[in-house]
Amino acid sequence: MQHIDIIVVGRVREQYLSTGINEYLKRLQPYARVRILEGPEEKVPDHLSPARVEQVLAAEGAGLKRLLRPGAYTIALDREGVMLSSEELATRLADLALAGRNDLAFVIGGTLGLARDLLEFADLRLSFSRFTFPHQLMRLILLEQLYRAYKIQRGETYHR
Amino acid sequence: MQHIDIIVVGRVREQYLSTGINEYLKRLQPYARVRILEGPEEKVPDHLSPARVEQVLAAEGAGLKRLLRPGAYTIALDREGVMLSSEELATRLADLALAGRNDLAFVIGGTLGLARDLLEFADLRLSFSRFTFPHQLMRLILLEQLYRAYKIQRGETYHR
Repeated sequence: MQHIDIIVVGRVREQYLSTGINEYLKRLQPYARVRILEGPEEKVPDHLSPARVEQVLAAEGAGLKRLLRPGAYTIALDREGVMLSSEELATRLADLALAGRNDLAFVIGGTLGLARDLLEFADLRLSFSRFTFPHQLMRLILLEQLYRAYKIQRGETYHR
Repeated sequence: MQHIDIIVVGRVREQYLSTGINEYLKRLQPYARVRILEGPEEKVPDHLSPARVEQVLAAEGAGLKRLLRPGAYTIALDREGVMLSSEELATRLADLALAGRNDLAFVIGGTLGLARDLLEFADLRLSFSRFTFPHQLMRLILLEQLYRAYKIQRGETYHR
């Protein structure tokens, strides 16, 4: 069984998102061991100097890195990354399992995104969209896609 | 003020999604008049013949078409469509308003997608992702992106 850490910045504030996230965590239980690990969130005021942006990214990035298990195959969510179909993601996860890579980490940046060194450290930079999504909603979108991937791998129908 | 109809198949079954959708409908109120219009949903059993798939798409498509106001600028959500950034979507919506196109319709297909004639009828085919998302979650994702677009247009900060 694959062990997947979803490494994120801060806590989810909206109750409806927590409910949705917990729903997919429950649905994923037969397929993978999935945890959400929350690193510390920096305050992001309205008008930030470029230097301050880098400081926030560096501080949040350091918090995320501390949560990465050594040796985990690391997938950074990045708008500019590779785009896959749901079927292609299912195949990638299956290929990783076949290669004995059962420790995976998905990393979702905070409001300002991910620090460059974390993007460079990642084994894969995966783009969900050219659109920017809220990082808290992104957790739900990612969990749904993981659930979908396992259903595809097993040839199980999944209507939503 | 732009008038946006979001034309969809069936009712949302998950309470947490309804809550999120209503939250964004409320947030959008200062920026646009947004309605969700639900067309009838066909039963989609597990193993469908290609002919039956076409029947479902045609039946659901006919129901969606009946909800389109004549003259509305129609944007079909389509995995294979054009990809935009959030800033580009904001500009498109502003350009449409400048051109006097204040009646917009976004169309989201059901479990099996959208009938071809609806895709061909649309003024724009817009892709949110190469991934397949649940059509009910798609409503929330679209509403959030519309809200983001109006915030970008007005130069208002929006942290999530």
